Amino acid sequence: MEQYFTDINNVFGNAIECGIKKNGLDLAYIYVPTAVASATVFTQHKFKASSVTYTQKNSKRHTLKACIINSGNANAVTGKKGDQDTKQLASLAASYLNLTPKEVGVAATGIIGVNLPMDVITKSMPTLFSNTNQKAGKLVAKAILTTDLVEKTVWVEKKIGKKNIIISGITKGSGMIAPNMATTLTFLVTNINIDQKRLQQCLEIAVNKSFNMMSVDTDTSTNDMVICFATGQHSIAQHDKTQCDEFQACLDDACLQLAIKIAKDGEGASKLIKVDITSATTHSDAKKIAKSVIESPLVKTAIHGADPNWGRILMAMGKIPQVKLNPLKVTVSIGPHILVKNGLPTTINRSDVKKELENQEVSIIIDLGIGNASASAWGCDLTKGYIDINTDYN
Amino acid sequence: MEQYFTDINNVFGNAIECGIKKNGLDLAYIYVPTAVASATVFTQHKFKASSVTYTQKNSKRHTLKACIINSGNANAVTGKKGDQDTKQLASLAASYLNLTPKEVGVAATGIIGVNLPMDVITKSMPTLFSNTNQKAGKLVAKAILTTDLVEKTVWVEKKIGKKNIIISGITKGSGMIAPNMATTLTFLVTNINIDQKRLQQCLEIAVNKSFNMMSVDTDTSTNDMVICFATGQHSIAQHDKTQCDEFQACLDDACLQLAIKIAKDGEGASKLIKVDITSATTHSDAKKIAKSVIESPLVKTAIHGADPNWGRILMAMGKIPQVKLNPLKVTVSIGPHILVKNGLPTTINRSDVKKELENQEVSIIIDLGIGNASASAWGCDLTKGYIDINTDYN
Repeated sequence: MEQYFTDINNVFGNAIECGIKKNGLDLAYIYVPTAVASATVFTQHKFKASSVTYTQKNSKRHTLKACIINSGNANAVTGKKGDQDTKQLASLAASYLNLTPKEVGVAATGIIGVNLPMDVITKSMPTLFSNTNQKAGKLVAKAILTTDLVEKTVWVEKKIGKKNIIISGITKGSGMIAPNMATTLTFLVTNINIDQKRLQQCLEIAVNKSFNMMSVDTDTSTNDMVICFATGQHSIAQHDKTQCDEFQACLDDACLQLAIKIAKDGEGASKLIKVDITSATTHSDAKKIAKSVIESPLVKTAIHGADPNWGRILMAMGKIPQVKLNPLKVTVSIGPHILVKNGLPTTINRSDVKKELENQEVSIIIDLGIGNASASAWGCDLTKGYIDINTDYN
Repeated sequence: MEQYFTDINNVFGNAIECGIKKNGLDLAYIYVPTAVASATVFTQHKFKASSVTYTQKNSKRHTLKACIINSGNANAVTGKKGDQDTKQLASLAASYLNLTPKEVGVAATGIIGVNLPMDVITKSMPTLFSNTNQKAGKLVAKAILTTDLVEKTVWVEKKIGKKNIIISGITKGSGMIAPNMATTLTFLVTNINIDQKRLQQCLEIAVNKSFNMMSVDTDTSTNDMVICFATGQHSIAQHDKTQCDEFQACLDDACLQLAIKIAKDGEGASKLIKVDITSATTHSDAKKIAKSVIESPLVKTAIHGADPNWGRILMAMGKIPQVKLNPLKVTVSIGPHILVKNGLPTTINRSDVKKELENQEVSIIIDLGIGNASASAWGCDLTKGYIDINTDYN
């Protein structure tokens, strides 16, 4: 049976259908009354939604203990009314949960530029919060989705020292997905006892290696938000490097699992693509090249068509002017097949490579042959499904 | 009747079908025996095709008087054999045209990583050059195309001083089109008498405002090349600022007309999109924002669907972290319809805007309200046609 974040002690959540979307669950809360720490990462978009501005401000000074989330309406570019609505949502949720509004985050996803239907939301609040000890994690996982086809959850469990540490969470995201950061609402909970500053450091490291290395369509949302709550149940030895590294590895793993689920469920996607860059001069170069390949429409369409057109991979690598790259040292593989060695095509069996590209997961490995740095990026193919979904979103 | 560059005095060209492509014209020459100057702009790609490296080197020291062009094979990532083939092409063309190989440019477009079929090419050369005074500009315009649906030509004519100055040219490009520089092979001829250095300056200015502000799919080619030949027929007063400005304006116009024809014929495109940014703090910011909007898959698909989803325009503007932008000063219009004023949505009649978006040419005007700089970019919508063409290119 799948496990949800609400299966962690002292973690609660519920979701209802209140009428923001035409159909389906669209209003939810997450509640961690014992939270000892909360960490957050937000979009860097210039037109930040009011939910982002509000939650960002609160989370700087306070430990968040809850979040109220709607899907269907981003409440972005909605002016003062939008700001007021966000504040009111936090206040209402706080009053039901016996918290101060500053302990409540607000998250939203959906259409831009339309005010929230506050009347229907406030009318639905008594139902949503009829029981604040609900364990309906599965409903929350569903309620945060928009164009996503599947719900995306993660459960990572590991004995650290003598404690059974859990990290569990949910995410949404399917289009408008590009690094810095890949669009997403992501909510994570861990049962660790940790201070806020350290949890923040850990989350930023994990996000950089996962959500920030994942791309569906190069577009970035106004509403991206990752929140991680710590319930405080289990202390690990924070001065013990091994234990800290183990926790970091679990958090990295949880974020990466969620990010990969987003790429797999990219709008219209039929394949997951992973790009590994090795032997680069710097990590920054490796990241830039990995992103350029994963974002290239011509690479994405070639892989969709299972076309062993490795020329497009070189094209996508070479189009960034600022990175170090020696064409004569480059080796490119798709799965086990080496297509380019030291900058020159090998003699490949096209039908073998075509078969490899017909898999649902395609791995592109690029060895730059000039250094020791590496990076990986995840994405998906570009299909007619993406066009269908986005030519008529409303 | 359409006019071609070979209608200029002392400008010759011819094209034949030699078998590089499966079908159609694929080998051509342009010959300007009286050339007094040639200017060139090349791709900045790291995997430059051998034709680019070769022509770039020659054009630094010599005035090009001819170019031999093939379509169907990029002769890129083809190692030493590729370099040798390019040199041989130049030598052969030079011998037929009574030039030195250093006076001959080589241009190529097509698939990457496959060696040129030199046997069929050399066998066809006597036919191609059977008459070196051919005026078959129309055939050359056709021969340089790959996935292009239409041939792209320009003819600009203006009295400067007392001289009738002409600039005429051809271009190809349909996919793998992004700034720096937009993929293209472009060949221009002018009947002016000008020195090489000044023509080079003029061409770089014109390319920056046209090909470098045009995007089909953000991908960049290994083979981009613009060459402009001057026949030397008519002298203008090069010390006269008005006359120089007039020539620059004609060259700008010629390049922009060709660039717009590329955007219109973008792979799968059904609409031309123009983005104007005004009142930016710097020209560089205006360019970055214009490019971000023109390149956004979500903007491109919304326009394809005639969906007045202006939220996506703001999304595409706001996703670049490095530019100056005050959300509360932004005004966005589509054609005559103001959709966002001072950062807030106006009350629009959606069906009026939808009608505007159903035009074959869509104009997005964004006033940043914070400065005096401006920039424009051109592109096209993203459709299932693009997916069709690129999932099965081979």
